[in-house]
Amino acid sequence: MSKSIFILNGPNLNLLGQREPDIYGHTTLADIEARCIVRAAALGHTVDFRQSNYEGALVEFVHDARLNGSAIIINPAGYTFTSVALMDALKMFDGPKIELHISNVHKREAVYHTSLMSAVVTGLVVGMGAYGYELAVDAVANFLANA
Amino acid sequence: MSKSIFILNGPNLNLLGQREPDIYGHTTLADIEARCIVRAAALGHTVDFRQSNYEGALVEFVHDARLNGSAIIINPAGYTFTSVALMDALKMFDGPKIELHISNVHKREAVYHTSLMSAVVTGLVVGMGAYGYELAVDAVANFLANA
Amino acid sequence: MSKSIFILNGPNLNLLGQREPDIYGHTTLADIEARCIVRAAALGHTVDFRQSNYEGALVEFVHDARLNGSAIIINPAGYTFTSVALMDALKMFDGPKIELHISNVHKREAVYHTSLMSAVVTGLVVGMGAYGYELAVDAVANFLANA
Amino acid sequence: MSKSIFILNGPNLNLLGQREPDIYGHTTLADIEARCIVRAAALGHTVDFRQSNYEGALVEFVHDARLNGSAIIINPAGYTFTSVALMDALKMFDGPKIELHISNVHKREAVYHTSLMSAVVTGLVVGMGAYGYELAVDAVANFLANA
Amino acid sequence: MSKSIFILNGPNLNLLGQREPDIYGHTTLADIEARCIVRAAALGHTVDFRQSNYEGALVEFVHDARLNGSAIIINPAGYTFTSVALMDALKMFDGPKIELHISNVHKREAVYHTSLMSAVVTGLVVGMGAYGYELAVDAVANFLANA
Amino acid sequence: MSKSIFILNGPNLNLLGQREPDIYGHTTLADIEARCIVRAAALGHTVDFRQSNYEGALVEFVHDARLNGSAIIINPAGYTFTSVALMDALKMFDGPKIELHISNVHKREAVYHTSLMSAVVTGLVVGMGAYGYELAVDAVANFLANA
Amino acid sequence: MSKSIFILNGPNLNLLGQREPDIYGHTTLADIEARCIVRAAALGHTVDFRQSNYEGALVEFVHDARLNGSAIIINPAGYTFTSVALMDALKMFDGPKIELHISNVHKREAVYHTSLMSAVVTGLVVGMGAYGYELAVDAVANFLANA
Amino acid sequence: MSKSIFILNGPNLNLLGQREPDIYGHTTLADIEARCIVRAAALGHTVDFRQSNYEGALVEFVHDARLNGSAIIINPAGYTFTSVALMDALKMFDGPKIELHISNVHKREAVYHTSLMSAVVTGLVVGMGAYGYELAVDAVANFLANA
Amino acid sequence: MSKSIFILNGPNLNLLGQREPDIYGHTTLADIEARCIVRAAALGHTVDFRQSNYEGALVEFVHDARLNGSAIIINPAGYTFTSVALMDALKMFDGPKIELHISNVHKREAVYHTSLMSAVVTGLVVGMGAYGYELAVDAVANFLANA
Amino acid sequence: MSKSIFILNGPNLNLLGQREPDIYGHTTLADIEARCIVRAAALGHTVDFRQSNYEGALVEFVHDARLNGSAIIINPAGYTFTSVALMDALKMFDGPKIELHISNVHKREAVYHTSLMSAVVTGLVVGMGAYGYELAVDAVANFLANA
Amino acid sequence: MSKSIFILNGPNLNLLGQREPDIYGHTTLADIEARCIVRAAALGHTVDFRQSNYEGALVEFVHDARLNGSAIIINPAGYTFTSVALMDALKMFDGPKIELHISNVHKREAVYHTSLMSAVVTGLVVGMGAYGYELAVDAVANFLANA
Amino acid sequence: MSKSIFILNGPNLNLLGQREPDIYGHTTLADIEARCIVRAAALGHTVDFRQSNYEGALVEFVHDARLNGSAIIINPAGYTFTSVALMDALKMFDGPKIELHISNVHKREAVYHTSLMSAVVTGLVVGMGAYGYELAVDAVANFLANA
Repeated sequence: MSKSIFILNGPNLNLLGQREPDIYGHTTLADIEARCIVRAAALGHTVDFRQSNYEGALVEFVHDARLNGSAIIINPAGYTFTSVALMDALKMFDGPKIELHISNVHKREAVYHTSLMSAVVTGLVVGMGAYGYELAVDAVANFLANA
Repeated sequence: MSKSIFILNGPNLNLLGQREPDIYGHTTLADIEARCIVRAAALGHTVDFRQSNYEGALVEFVHDARLNGSAIIINPAGYTFTSVALMDALKMFDGPKIELHISNVHKREAVYHTSLMSAVVTGLVVGMGAYGYELAVDAVANFLANA
Repeated sequence: MSKSIFILNGPNLNLLGQREPDIYGHTTLADIEARCIVRAAALGHTVDFRQSNYEGALVEFVHDARLNGSAIIINPAGYTFTSVALMDALKMFDGPKIELHISNVHKREAVYHTSLMSAVVTGLVVGMGAYGYELAVDAVANFLANA
Repeated sequence: MSKSIFILNGPNLNLLGQREPDIYGHTTLADIEARCIVRAAALGHTVDFRQSNYEGALVEFVHDARLNGSAIIINPAGYTFTSVALMDALKMFDGPKIELHISNVHKREAVYHTSLMSAVVTGLVVGMGAYGYELAVDAVANFLANA
Repeated sequence: MSKSIFILNGPNLNLLGQREPDIYGHTTLADIEARCIVRAAALGHTVDFRQSNYEGALVEFVHDARLNGSAIIINPAGYTFTSVALMDALKMFDGPKIELHISNVHKREAVYHTSLMSAVVTGLVVGMGAYGYELAVDAVANFLANA
Repeated sequence: MSKSIFILNGPNLNLLGQREPDIYGHTTLADIEARCIVRAAALGHTVDFRQSNYEGALVEFVHDARLNGSAIIINPAGYTFTSVALMDALKMFDGPKIELHISNVHKREAVYHTSLMSAVVTGLVVGMGAYGYELAVDAVANFLANA
Repeated sequence: MSKSIFILNGPNLNLLGQREPDIYGHTTLADIEARCIVRAAALGHTVDFRQSNYEGALVEFVHDARLNGSAIIINPAGYTFTSVALMDALKMFDGPKIELHISNVHKREAVYHTSLMSAVVTGLVVGMGAYGYELAVDAVANFLANA
Repeated sequence: MSKSIFILNGPNLNLLGQREPDIYGHTTLADIEARCIVRAAALGHTVDFRQSNYEGALVEFVHDARLNGSAIIINPAGYTFTSVALMDALKMFDGPKIELHISNVHKREAVYHTSLMSAVVTGLVVGMGAYGYELAVDAVANFLANA
Repeated sequence: MSKSIFILNGPNLNLLGQREPDIYGHTTLADIEARCIVRAAALGHTVDFRQSNYEGALVEFVHDARLNGSAIIINPAGYTFTSVALMDALKMFDGPKIELHISNVHKREAVYHTSLMSAVVTGLVVGMGAYGYELAVDAVANFLANA
Repeated sequence: MSKSIFILNGPNLNLLGQREPDIYGHTTLADIEARCIVRAAALGHTVDFRQSNYEGALVEFVHDARLNGSAIIINPAGYTFTSVALMDALKMFDGPKIELHISNVHKREAVYHTSLMSAVVTGLVVGMGAYGYELAVDAVANFLANA
Repeated sequence: MSKSIFILNGPNLNLLGQREPDIYGHTTLADIEARCIVRAAALGHTVDFRQSNYEGALVEFVHDARLNGSAIIINPAGYTFTSVALMDALKMFDGPKIELHISNVHKREAVYHTSLMSAVVTGLVVGMGAYGYELAVDAVANFLANA
Repeated sequence: MSKSIFILNGPNLNLLGQREPDIYGHTTLADIEARCIVRAAALGHTVDFRQSNYEGALVEFVHDARLNGSAIIINPAGYTFTSVALMDALKMFDGPKIELHISNVHKREAVYHTSLMSAVVTGLVVGMGAYGYELAVDAVANFLANA
């Protein structure tokens, strides 16, 4: 299989590990990327791991995944709740797509409770910490194996 | 470790495999129990797997877990959206607790969009089909290993 | 036809005839059962008439109807407005299903105005007093005759 | 009894049988009128059956029923959800009055869910197809027999 | 002054005096017309007094008033709460325009609390019984005298 | 009749004539008092005319009216929309009570649209300018003459 | 092609050119009819141009279009926001149907923002002034040419 | 007096003293029962003290109170906010009925702010800790003494 | 203990016993004061009992209680639902504070259902009639004894 | 005329023709640009046609139009519903500006129903497919010809 | 310049420094007055500094400012969110007027988020602690210098 | 102190002075920058002044401030109301942070009334015109001096 699992990360996640560690932990995004590569490899997959603070860039990452991606795991961070553009882009991707949040957004303020993405993704992994990324890799590998 | 992972299932799930298979698939609850036992065993855990159509029974299953459970994975089905009693019971359990839905509830009617449980659980696994139970076992095992 | 029309009654209806007679009249549930048996017999049907104050029991009555019922007439009483579990159970029954209320719920307080059941039943009979049960038997007989 | 059962039909019902037959069936309003006359005659009643696309005309039909009607069965169609004028007219009629919808309005879009009429009628028959008219005739005959 | 005060009455007001007399009293619309003519004459005005159950007719009465009316007193009854068409017509009339309700609508059900007309009229007279028409004639005479 | 018509005025009305004259005109509260005395005298009544900027004082004016008032005309100004205390006081007065606003509050911002007083008064006079006070005197005189 | 393009106009539009010209301009409905006939002729179509202030009449115009119309262009004016009856009628018409507003309703008060028609028409032309009718003729001609 | 004061306790209260002690304290339900018996005895009453986690059981406890209870004190816990069935049952009990909450529910999350029971009980005791049960016994004794 | 229990009463309560006796009974505020003094004395406390119709005065009574009060029992009457100023004042008092309503406010109109005070007081006594004051004295004595 | 008509396209429109063709058709954005150039040329105008997935870029395209544009036609796609920044930019452009949607957004999910742009544009063309761009060119040409 | 800057303080602010010091700090109102006098003097202004717990008094302070004030700085405290009377008074003042809150009200409970004053003042200073008064003096001096 | 005060400006502010001058005045952003540098210098601070129309760029400016900024003054313009990403970024900055709006947003349309930023900043300066930037510099200098 020459297509990769796209793992896309939204705004402020470049600071993961430095930012509100009581909520998000000390793991950095680079740590997560490394773990995802290992987990994916064990399941026969490669990973294309990206981050941007720009809504437009995230839209275009999803466009790229239409060509080169077997699945999408996306942590849209702040755009989860506000980006119809990103929701529209995700609708156009036909493979498995997982929405992921490191913390349990439902324990936080109301603005974090209503995701625009949830109705267009295949499934969600929420509140599992950095380990959620590995679970999501496992989940998409399972979907791809049964597609 | 002498405590089990409690896996609790709410109303109508006894009919899983017969009920709306286009949404929930053909796997039965017994199939899922079997797979969870295997997955948990591989991770060094046992499973206490239960189902009830009664809100009161589910509340009491959670009470039992306070004594004998290391973690809870709960698919509260219809009570997800209506049971403050079950939410209150879950609050009293201190270990990892995962809310699980087989289908992606966010793709369904509005009544299925607002979970009373989400703010009191550790994390959620949604829309992964029957495989979600295995992911949830993996997730709680990870939490227990790092507790 | 060996299957029966299931006529299911929710919480507090065991007190019918004693309870708020200005709203519900003096007819008891046993009176209604007797009349339904007669009406159904005239139309070539038998009746399985039940009552419970437990949401879980009502869910399981509907499960029973999947095996042994030709149709369901249900007066869910207080669970009309609160039970997603019962709504989910009714979705799984394929035959005619009628939601019935003895009084006109729309004349009462706002909490009685929004039924969770209405969108998943075939039709409704509301405000016809105890006679509504007989109309509902007539209605399901008509549906079964034309199925 | 020299007064008739008024059966009143609102806008677009003149096209019944031609219009969205998957929702409303192929029966025409003339077919329904014929069946109601037969059913009413069997119960000792006559029928005054009318249709208009004008809200003002429906208001005046109800005024006529105050003089010449023993009961009203009304399918207000689109005016169900918007006509305070018709609701006010129905309040002034003292006999039994039934609100009728051929399809189950609760299965349709939200605009069809809140009836202005429901709080001022005696009862409702919803979702029974054309046969609902016959059930409504039966219902008002029962009310009149017990008045 | 050759123009008249238009006094316009909406649906069901033709039954005034017969309808819910505990709310509206026993005075008929003809009684009111007679009193208005007397009161207006004393103030040097004539009256054009009309009633219709049709929204379209009321719209056209307002159009007529643009040609032949010095002022409008309107009791839109049920259309008060639902007719954007009548609100639009009233916007086009430049003279004094009074919205009138015989009963105090604010003591009634919520559907009677929000008038579409109030923001486009000059003033309101509410809850004064049939005498309110005479007060409204006095009010428009005062406006016309000071215009 | 030894009791007076109480005419009560709320906050900022002491500045009437100086304040936003495009909305409220140039007439002062003293002018209005003078006109009301004349109008009331012509109808056989005396007037007790008061103003306060204090909610508590207005409440106590209404208490006084229970002893010495035949009727109340009240322009509660800003307290119209916020004072449950004043609404409660008005409930305790048994004679005719008129809510009055000089301008048409429905043409203004939304905060001025929902009066707490309207459901507890006999009737309303709105948008008639300073002349509205005279109409209100006429109205209460009519109620008292027919009591 | 023997069927015409029906161009239907709702309440108060008979006064176009006299009414609020700062919003609607000085063009009359007759002017618009003339321009539409010319534009349609150039595209090989005839026009059936009508106006009514009655909701019931507009419903029946749409019924007529089912027999004799190739397309509908409708400016429902005040009924845009209140008529479920007209919405239901439009649902029954299978050809292209355009909702048209002369002014940009979104710049006006909130009551003009939510159209009941928009979800059942093919498309909308809003805020183009009288010229919008010509654009709508062009649009339906294009739809008909590509049907 | 041979009837008892029924003191009914809802879901999770069997764990009182173990559960969230910072909110509910260390007193157990058995402690409370003992204190209530003493307090009631001093006032000449006996107590029937029950707990269930099942909504249906609580409904039936209230049914029992119709036969054998002089008054009801109920702490419905999680069912306070969700059970129309329990509200309906309480409506049928004619004696004094007190809704009790150990903690001040208004200090907690929004889901705990709107009680379905409050409109059908005689009065409420909220936020008084375990001592509230004794106050409620005092209150119903006072009602019974003055009935 | 040299500090008193402050018992504060809001607007219109000076008329207690005269006002709507079917809701509030015939007991006067002076009767209640007398009973509270007796009850408090039995428990070793003195009482400072006050009433005002002014929001500002009630705010200052609470300020006084910060110096001289051991506890506050407050029946804020109409200010319950509207006074953020009084809520802010109560926040600053550290001892036990009870919100009291003579009638069950939840049985009344919606405006009486949402108290601004409830989230800042220790507990509530509602619907117990005049006797509620005595229960509240008992409650604060218990809190003070256990502080 | 040396200024061009700016035709601006928002996120995901670069994939037009590939994306959800049952909703948007098979026409590409390049096809549309070509047709617009032809249509504009026939009317004496040039076109500046752009697309971006970045909100900030679209804001700057509008800034450019202030210098070099005679009119704006904008299909903001997902930003229609979420971008106050783009709305603010459009407010600053003084020429004709048309909001365009290829599909009828009112037939889609609720998130697509409330445009932030509509209140600041001159007019809208909705649901006309790719042909809507040509209609919009015609519309702005008409506005420019009559400016 | 003989007019002063009026600095007005609402309910409970007399306790500043004693009240919730973690939110409001230890500075007293007298400290703030002293600082404002110094800051104003440096800018060529005098200060009239007042506090009241009475809404009516605050209304009258604003009336006084119409005669003797050059500008108003107002911290309405609890009345910010509830006083239409005070909002109406502020509308009548023509000079610069600043709404001030010591703490950042947006970080507090929802009841503190919607100010009735904000739409009628010139500007706001929020969350700057006691220093905010000095900034507000600077701001009004700047407005007055540029008027 | 080697860190600067970051002054960040959102979309469309590059056009300040050209855009809606009746709302925003004629001062340009360069003018403001110059004044801020002077004011800051007088207080011993330097300024890093930036503007972008891109949400992602503003997020990254805040990231830069974590390294090189002593304080943030941000005028997020259109992103104030829509950017959870920017709100999340601001949460991560520990120094003083001021939200600034040149005009009084509360006087404008409803979309400008609810800021996502307000709950995460230290304080706000609103409606002070361009001078507000200088006040904000003063405010952060005061915070830094007292930190």
